[in-house]
Formats: sequence, structure tokens, C-alpha cells
Amino acid sequence: MKYKLMEIVDGNITAVAGITALGKHIGIKKVKQDFAVIVAENPCSTAAVYTKNRVKGAPLLVTKSHLAKMKGRSQAIVINSGVANVCTGKQGMRDAEEMTALVGKELGIKKEYVLVASTGIIGKYLPMDKIRAGTKGIKNALSKESTVAQAILTTDTIKKEICVTEDNFTIAAIAKGSGMIHPNMATMLAFITTDAAVAPKKIQTMLRAAIQDSFNMMTVDMDTSTSDMAIVLATGTAGKVNEKKFQHALTFVCQDLAKKIAKDGEGATKLIEVHVKHAKTKQAARTLAKAVVSSNLVKCAVYGNDPNWGRILCALGNANIAFDPTKVTVFFGDSCIVKNGITTAFDYAQVKACMDKKEFIMTIDLHSGTEHAVAYGCDMTEGYIKINAQYHT
Amino acid sequence: MKYKLMEIVDGNITAVAGITALGKHIGIKKVKQDFAVIVAENPCSTAAVYTKNRVKGAPLLVTKSHLAKMKGRSQAIVINSGVANVCTGKQGMRDAEEMTALVGKELGIKKEYVLVASTGIIGKYLPMDKIRAGTKGIKNALSKESTVAQAILTTDTIKKEICVTEDNFTIAAIAKGSGMIHPNMATMLAFITTDAAVAPKKIQTMLRAAIQDSFNMMTVDMDTSTSDMAIVLATGTAGKVNEKKFQHALTFVCQDLAKKIAKDGEGATKLIEVHVKHAKTKQAARTLAKAVVSSNLVKCAVYGNDPNWGRILCALGNANIAFDPTKVTVFFGDSCIVKNGITTAFDYAQVKACMDKKEFIMTIDLHSGTEHAVAYGCDMTEGYIKINAQYHT
Repeated sequence: MKYKLMEIVDGNITAVAGITALGKHIGIKKVKQDFAVIVAENPCSTAAVYTKNRVKGAPLLVTKSHLAKMKGRSQAIVINSGVANVCTGKQGMRDAEEMTALVGKELGIKKEYVLVASTGIIGKYLPMDKIRAGTKGIKNALSKESTVAQAILTTDTIKKEICVTEDNFTIAAIAKGSGMIHPNMATMLAFITTDAAVAPKKIQTMLRAAIQDSFNMMTVDMDTSTSDMAIVLATGTAGKVNEKKFQHALTFVCQDLAKKIAKDGEGATKLIEVHVKHAKTKQAARTLAKAVVSSNLVKCAVYGNDPNWGRILCALGNANIAFDPTKVTVFFGDSCIVKNGITTAFDYAQVKACMDKKEFIMTIDLHSGTEHAVAYGCDMTEGYIKINAQYHT
Repeated sequence: MKYKLMEIVDGNITAVAGITALGKHIGIKKVKQDFAVIVAENPCSTAAVYTKNRVKGAPLLVTKSHLAKMKGRSQAIVINSGVANVCTGKQGMRDAEEMTALVGKELGIKKEYVLVASTGIIGKYLPMDKIRAGTKGIKNALSKESTVAQAILTTDTIKKEICVTEDNFTIAAIAKGSGMIHPNMATMLAFITTDAAVAPKKIQTMLRAAIQDSFNMMTVDMDTSTSDMAIVLATGTAGKVNEKKFQHALTFVCQDLAKKIAKDGEGATKLIEVHVKHAKTKQAARTLAKAVVSSNLVKCAVYGNDPNWGRILCALGNANIAFDPTKVTVFFGDSCIVKNGITTAFDYAQVKACMDKKEFIMTIDLHSGTEHAVAYGCDMTEGYIKINAQYHT
């Protein structure tokens, strides 16, 4: 067993031994790739976390029931983009089940070992004829050099992937989100593979922990989708791992994807990181950081490079968390612009320049506890309105 | 005593006997009126409701303490626009107190009988020299023909006033909100006068009830301001009133102003009314209606006249209220576009035409109870981004 520090390496979700994939165009979308499969050599210890939206897509319900039946083990994931298969009633459930059956048959595994995810328009049925045709012969097309990170995108402008190695294990991941071709899509999907040997219950706990400080701290427009899902497949070939290091690496991978999604938010010109420091509780820190990064007014001000700190105090005050406004310090980059809740004589030009970057960091110190949190978001621009008002269903 | 049905009549806040007012320019803003006073002949039974933002402006704290000291009675309100006197520390509290003292001296009444409201930029001190000069001689300038409804505005594009009469009483009201010249303003103010004789405690309860179905059901951008305040002065000259009718009229007046504010929202092209019907509880109906009218994605779709119902279901699902998506019906105007949670074969052109109006009404029927609620909002346009990103502090 080799011991080494965590390192970011080239490679996508197939960088993990025993994992192959494919991405292809089957005609759900006009030109772009719209169908993907991720396959493991053997059943994997599997964790999945789903949207909290009360309206849940059929694929998510099928995935959940398969994982329950197989006691947290799975061997393949089938994904389509273009149609989300949400608000599609019983037909939608039948279609999602059929997708898993089609893939299971091709791969020679039980359909219950196949998970399914869909992203795209809400309220339309899947074109099952295209999916039936597209699934034929997938086994021979699986490879280490797949375009899977591309095939799961909608109008994302960049593909989102990361791979890290540490000690004896590798974690590789891809995600999609924040871009919309069609105005009723809003879906975040993340797929993670690792060779670490971690039992289903344990990896479920670890995924939840990782998500709390990553995907759950990210917002583009406050609309939690009906199809959000993150899945980890752990093949186990690397053997036992140092839990603390594995948790840290898993959280790092999820945070990296969350930042990439936020930065690629609809119409966004920059990533916003809001660091809240010295809150009384972790939950207070998280809630306040998210309140600020979610405020339309803050997002517009950041777009305009306007150090409009009144909006930040206003957003904090709206979060329904007790704090003392007269103790609050706000930094934009290294410049302190608010001290004890009142403005400082900051250098306006310098602060504007600090805001005019692709990654803008603001730090809010509450001076009233020991807990910190970071939230990820993006600025709000005319591009957001254009994407969501001017493209039509 | 005459008995008559409720009627909307011409007239502003001074339509009530014994109420006079003035609006003027004192130099806080460059050209527009920025200072107003509303005065009653005698101390009035008074109710006030304040922002729930944890960061509260100094004027609001002073108003609250004066009303407590005088056991719910007051005789005058002084208002300025341009500077909100929020996040201004001890200096801000001294300035707000001084405003009431200056007005009290001019009118020959105790400063504790004077309430104060400010709207404008957060984090700046009031120009007290201008306020001192502006207050001189106000007593002689008070009249029935004041420009008070104009003087309290910021970038509102229309003044908001209403007057109703019923039985023996009159209720007159003005409000401001939803417009911003300067990007750190976001303030809703409402001032209501009536000749009804209602005791302080009673009118406080009635104002709270009225607000729950009006201002509290309205959103432009989900940022509750640090300065929001609604005040009722009841002179009592009309004598006792039918409580049920008075409550109904007070709620009607508040709803009328809420609609006017929403319609004049930043960058808005239309008013959106979301009616939620047959919810299990009143609170569920309110929360769901507000969730839909608050969704950026819904607001963008309405701007684009796009019958994008998937976003409505998604917004309902995010409100953390239990409901059965498969029972949901959605109407745009008279057209049913969703039935049992699934799309209908609606007439696309007809539905688009119904959306392309200055007042767009959608009705969401949950078919699971007896409670209803209505929320008021506006569409989201490039104008909102422009106002909030491109004007600078």
C-alpha cells in the first residue's frame, strides 16, 4: 500500500479501475450527445442522495427502489439528457423501469443493479423508441475514453469533471447543472466513482456529509430541481482506506464540482464565494452564507462590481438567524468594507477591481462564535433573464 | 349615522377629517420631493407593523419606542426619502429622535407623539442640517391638498394611494415601494388614516390581520427591507364602526396598495396574481402561493409569456409543504393547462395571449382542503438587472 498526499490528477469518471462508460447521441436532442452509461465490472457499494423537492422525478424513484432492493449495491447507471421524465405519472415510472431493464439485458445483469437518471424538460414523456434503439450494443461501446461527461450536459457551457488520488484510493467524478436550453429544466446531477472499499451504509453517511458542505451550499437561482441526484459507486478494488482522508477527499471532489456548476450558472460572469466566520453554530453559518449568496440584490451588485454592503446586511437580517449586526465585519477580498456593522473609509477603486474577477470572495465575520461555512453562487445578469424568458417551451 | 356599501372614492390620505399633510423638497435628493409630514388634529389610536428583518432601521426603533411610551397613541408622522438611516449606529438613533423633536416643536406637541420613517440608501447618515432647515414653518404649510404621496417615493414610477368609504367611516392610505434609484434601497412604507374610533390594541390586531393577506403576500425580489413599516392613524371622529366591515375595508385597502406596489416592481412589465385554492391549511395556501410568485424561473417565464408549468410544480415542491402533485390543477386565466399534475392539450396561442396582459392571474387548485390564499408579485425582466447592477452606490 502506497501512502501519498491528495493530488488532483487528469482523468474522468473512468479513471477508477473496473469502471467503463459511454456517451452518445440517440436523437432525444437534435445534435448534442444525450445518452450515457456508466458500468462497473462487479456490483459496487453505492450511495445516493436525492432532491428535497416534493415533486420527484420517476428516475429518482426507480433508482431509490432499486438501491433499497439490492441493499445499497449497484453495477450501472443509465443517464439521458433532454427529457427529465418528471410529472409524467405512471407512464413515466414504466419508462424509467424499462430503461434499467434494457441496459440490464445488454449488460447481462439484473435490472435492479441498474440505476437511472434523466435531465431535461419537465412534463414530457421519454421517446422510448429512441432509447430502445440507442441501448442496443452498448456493451461493446463501453471504454475508458468515453464522452460521458459531455453526454449528461444540457446547456452547461463547460463539462465538469475531477479526479483525485490519495494513499491507495482514487475518486473520480462528473456533474452537470446550471445551464438550461429549455426553460423548464433545472437539474443537478453528479456521478462519482472510487476504488475504495467502503460498505453501503458507511458510504451513504460519507456522501451526505460531503454534500452538506458542497452541493447543498451552492445556488444558482434558488429553485431546487425535481431531478437532483448524486450517486457514488465504490468498486472496492483498492481495499480499505483511511476514513478521515477519504471523507476529506470526497468532500473536496463535491466542492470542486459545486464551484464548477456555480461558475457555469445561467448567464453568470463570475463565481461568488461567501465565507461566513465565527458564527454560533455550524447551521447558522451555513444559513447566513447561503442567504447572502442567494440574494438577487447581492448577485446584481456583484455583477455591477458595486460594493453595495447594505444589501449584504439586509440579506443576513432576512435569514431568520439571531446575530448582532453591530459586530459584523465584511471583507471583499482583502479589503475591509464594513466594521462593527458600519461602513469603513475603503478604497472604492481597489474594491471595485477586486470584484471585477472571475472568482470573487467575500468574507463575513460575525465575531460571535467558532463555526464557519462557505457558500457558492454566481452573479445575476441579463443573460439569466434571456435564457429563462426568451427561450420557449 | 348613514349606512352604505364600501365604495372607492377619489382622495388621498387627507380625505379623513382632521388629517392634513405636506410634501416638499429639502435637498436630500437632487430634484424630487424627499420630505413629508402627516398630522392629525388630536392624538390618534395608532397601530404599526414593522419589518421582520433582524437589521432594523433607527426610525423604526424610535417609532416603536414612542408608541410604547404613549400607549398606542400618536399625532404626527415625519417621513424622508433618499436616506434610510439604517446601519448608522448611535448617530442614526440620535438623528431619528431629533427628527421627531424638530417636528414636535413646530407643531407644539410632545416629540413622543411624533413617529418617524425613512427610506433610501442604507449605511449613510441623514443630512440633519437639511432636515433642520426643512422642518421650519411646516405647520403653516400643512393642507388637504398635499403632495405627500409623491414625497415618500424613491424610484417608484407611480404614486400609490387609495381611499374607501363605508357606513360611517373612511379609510385613506398611501404607500411606496419596489422602485430603487440607489441600489441599496428596498423599502416598503404604508401610511393609513381613518376616522373610525377603534382602540389602540384593537386596531393593532386589525392591522396585523389586514397585512397578513396583503403586504405579507407580496414580493418583488424576496429581499425584506430593513425599513419596512405600515402605520394606521385612527382619529376616531366617525365614532364606533362595524368591526367586520372595518376589517374588510382595511384589508381591501392594504391589498390594493400591495397590488400597486407589485405592479410597479423594479423592471416589471406586469402584475402576477397567484391564487392557491383548496389547500389543507391557510398557512399552506399562503406559503405555496408565495413560493410560486417568488420563483425567479416562474417570473422569467411569465415575462416571456411562456406557459412553462413545470416551473410552477417545481416551485410548489420546494415550499416544504406536503401536497399531492398528482391532484394539482393549474389555470392560466380561464385555460386549464395542468390537470392531475400532468399537462393538458391546451391551446398554446390562447394561453400566450392570456399571459400577455398587464395583470396575469394563475390559479392553482390543490384539491385537498378548503383554504385559499392569493399572492401578488411581478415578472422578472432585464430591467430588474439594469436597475440593480448598473446604477452604482
